[in-house]
Amino acid sequence: MPLKIDVLTLFPRMLDGFLAESILGKGIAAGRLGVTVHDLRGWTTDKHRTADDRPFGGGAGMVMKPEPVFAAIEQLQTPGCRRIYLTPDGVPFSMPLAKELSEQQHLVILSGHYEGIDQRIRERIIDQEISIGDYVLTNGTLAAAVVIDALARFIPGVLGEEKSLTHESFTSKLLDFPQYTRPAEFRGMSVPEVLLSGNHAEIEKWRHARQVEKTRQVRPDLLT
Amino acid sequence: MPLKIDVLTLFPRMLDGFLAESILGKGIAAGRLGVTVHDLRGWTTDKHRTADDRPFGGGAGMVMKPEPVFAAIEQLQTPGCRRIYLTPDGVPFSMPLAKELSEQQHLVILSGHYEGIDQRIRERIIDQEISIGDYVLTNGTLAAAVVIDALARFIPGVLGEEKSLTHESFTSKLLDFPQYTRPAEFRGMSVPEVLLSGNHAEIEKWRHARQVEKTRQVRPDLLT
Repeated sequence: MPLKIDVLTLFPRMLDGFLAESILGKGIAAGRLGVTVHDLRGWTTDKHRTADDRPFGGGAGMVMKPEPVFAAIEQLQTPGCRRIYLTPDGVPFSMPLAKELSEQQHLVILSGHYEGIDQRIRERIIDQEISIGDYVLTNGTLAAAVVIDALARFIPGVLGEEKSLTHESFTSKLLDFPQYTRPAEFRGMSVPEVLLSGNHAEIEKWRHARQVEKTRQVRPDLLT
Repeated sequence: MPLKIDVLTLFPRMLDGFLAESILGKGIAAGRLGVTVHDLRGWTTDKHRTADDRPFGGGAGMVMKPEPVFAAIEQLQTPGCRRIYLTPDGVPFSMPLAKELSEQQHLVILSGHYEGIDQRIRERIIDQEISIGDYVLTNGTLAAAVVIDALARFIPGVLGEEKSLTHESFTSKLLDFPQYTRPAEFRGMSVPEVLLSGNHAEIEKWRHARQVEKTRQVRPDLLT
């Protein structure tokens, strides 16, 4: 059974292009995974389709109400599925987590308002809170797309045979080495000799040294 | 003059929904910022519209060629614009960086292949390399959307008057406090008394304590 993903959002149209295009779109078309985007307002019960309300205790912005979210998740969830809420307060998203998610049967992903959602949702019907980075988005829908895109790469057949997950940032805790393609000379800039040498041991050595150097410069935190 | 953003990508359709919907779509419609997505293949010159090629030195995957990218950026750039490349090797995206980008006149954002782009592009015609997180996407187009969404929130008028940038994760280096909205009682779960008290000093104190507690639990790294 391919991985099934349900996304709950107030902005379902945001993901139209993302789901149709690119490598992910091909993976969906090929039946490697299934993604369904649901409009959370479908589970509201009043005539104004109210999904949010003012926060108790005061403050700016609106907070997502518990009723529609409980109703939606209770309808969509299956035994053993993982219910995920995307929020800057969550655990940082990472490659190991992407891989782990890609091995599940069913994910229900809730995209919140940036001001927040009622805490009772988080405590009662969310299994995992994930953050894609230390910044705030207008809502969690793009974050859902990022998580889906990253995990899809681990699903066999999605990237295609010519692609590979080896030698890239974060499989080794080091940043990537520089890449070069033709032409060997472009506007006075030449490809490093060693890459044209055909000496694979030397190429590996050069690439590893560049990885260490780049990681030291840009992300020394990864080396600690 | 509103901020002008040009996005260069091999998958221009990926951003259709994102640009039309949500708060960002409203900001664009209101003329608060302008975003144009360009198909990089428009700058290829052969009949197959080749934008990538095999890497020198061997390895899996394809590398974006220098010629179309140089041609595209040289056509789109303006004096003083910032040319950004989205890559997991870049500096981590953050709220201060989002704010800084929102204050520019013109951004040219290059979305790369996940296998990489020719290093000469990065050295010669890119001003800043940005990473949205420690994970790899199928391509940088979603990352461009994330950067645009986060920076748009700092552009006056985009969020609307009722919204606010105060009291949210990363303006204070602490994670957010829990939010609650009506009903005060839901399925046996009650909103914390203090939030119903009307005592603003007590509410502030409670919220701050929850922020510290949550940050300690989930992201102790933010406290060091």
